[in-house]
Amino acid sequence: MNAADKLKNIRVVLCGTSHPGNIGAAARALKTMGLTRLYLVTPAQFPDPEARWRAVRATDILARATLCANLDEALNGVAFAVACSARSREVAVPEVPAREAARRVIDAASGQQAALVFGNETHGLTTAEVNKCRLLATIPANPKYSSLNLAAAVQVFAYELRMAAMDGAARGEKSGSRAFASFEEVEGFYEQLERTMVEVGFLNPQHPKKLMPRLRRLFARAQLEKEEVNILRGLLKALGRLRSGRR
Amino acid sequence: MNAADKLKNIRVVLCGTSHPGNIGAAARALKTMGLTRLYLVTPAQFPDPEARWRAVRATDILARATLCANLDEALNGVAFAVACSARSREVAVPEVPAREAARRVIDAASGQQAALVFGNETHGLTTAEVNKCRLLATIPANPKYSSLNLAAAVQVFAYELRMAAMDGAARGEKSGSRAFASFEEVEGFYEQLERTMVEVGFLNPQHPKKLMPRLRRLFARAQLEKEEVNILRGLLKALGRLRSGRR
Repeated sequence: MNAADKLKNIRVVLCGTSHPGNIGAAARALKTMGLTRLYLVTPAQFPDPEARWRAVRATDILARATLCANLDEALNGVAFAVACSARSREVAVPEVPAREAARRVIDAASGQQAALVFGNETHGLTTAEVNKCRLLATIPANPKYSSLNLAAAVQVFAYELRMAAMDGAARGEKSGSRAFASFEEVEGFYEQLERTMVEVGFLNPQHPKKLMPRLRRLFARAQLEKEEVNILRGLLKALGRLRSGRR
Repeated sequence: MNAADKLKNIRVVLCGTSHPGNIGAAARALKTMGLTRLYLVTPAQFPDPEARWRAVRATDILARATLCANLDEALNGVAFAVACSARSREVAVPEVPAREAARRVIDAASGQQAALVFGNETHGLTTAEVNKCRLLATIPANPKYSSLNLAAAVQVFAYELRMAAMDGAARGEKSGSRAFASFEEVEGFYEQLERTMVEVGFLNPQHPKKLMPRLRRLFARAQLEKEEVNILRGLLKALGRLRSGRR
């Protein structure tokens, strides 16, 4: 099962949302991360123009949102639900950070329905609601101000779900098809560089200090490409001509 | 250096923000993750009641925000800047995912200033702006709809920074061994390099081709340190003296 299919098995449930703008912003957050299924439990106001405005090009998510009378209805058919909360609390279910929760939701979502559940902007989820879920997930936040905006919290969880679904695939630097310079080309450049520095009196062969090792380290980090070595050697040659012209 | 102190060395720069609500929401996002320093480059409207409303209890971040006339001003004194963008593109700097970028910013932020740079809501950052940074960081998003709300993107990056800072602290990592060159030092080196190349006739200002962008890309990958910039500038100066001696 691929990443996109797993994400399609995950619903995001917003309970008792007060501000329609947050519903729209949450829809946008879901769509940017490849999630599609929004469930709304007794929102204060929906549908609403503010929700559509904040959804931007994710109004399709809003149009297909499922309205529910209570959390039980929204979790119907769900095998693995996670309560999302800004704060730790005494509940019956284990508490894990968002990243760990996302991994477990993605594991569960191959072949089963999973859900993330978010509470109201002011009061969060009730203890009874949290206890209907399998885990309580929290975003590790500033203890002095841990109150993320609802849609921002949805964005962080949706992002973690996508990262977990893509797993290692997204990590590490892009390499593409870079044409690296050969060993000899790079060494030839270093020789020319050293020679030029000696000629202009910048490097004293009697007291070379750490100059060449430092420069080698710098260019080694850059992982020189073929064309770049050509540019650098061309530049050194131009400078060399200048010097011989002087003699 | 502990996690909280590292986060204090990181500034978040918003360039040309159109909607004051996004500035407020970004301030809230920063504060929830323990970040405190907001820089605003030519915002369309600031201060603004909508910004204050969306900041909720993070209005202190807004009150202490630094207004700047351009990106150079905002990056003054910064040793490690990362451009944040929704999309991949052809630029001189290496591209990495948000998580990897956050680790590298946190490494740099022990004892040095670091920055995350965000563009305007509609147009993002210009290529010139991205090229002033050391890395381009992207949030791996749905290729069919990758347009995160600006404040939502700030929230994701701020979250990753906090996670990276806590992670490093948990592992008791030693970090901050590398002393990166500041933004001004690196730009000063590029200017001197370009001037020297023009003087020796290696670079024709009428037909510059892609020479400077190529060299910027090379040195961007190398992630120049303070001492290395000093060596390179010293070398260029030695070559310059040679040239004036010839006249």
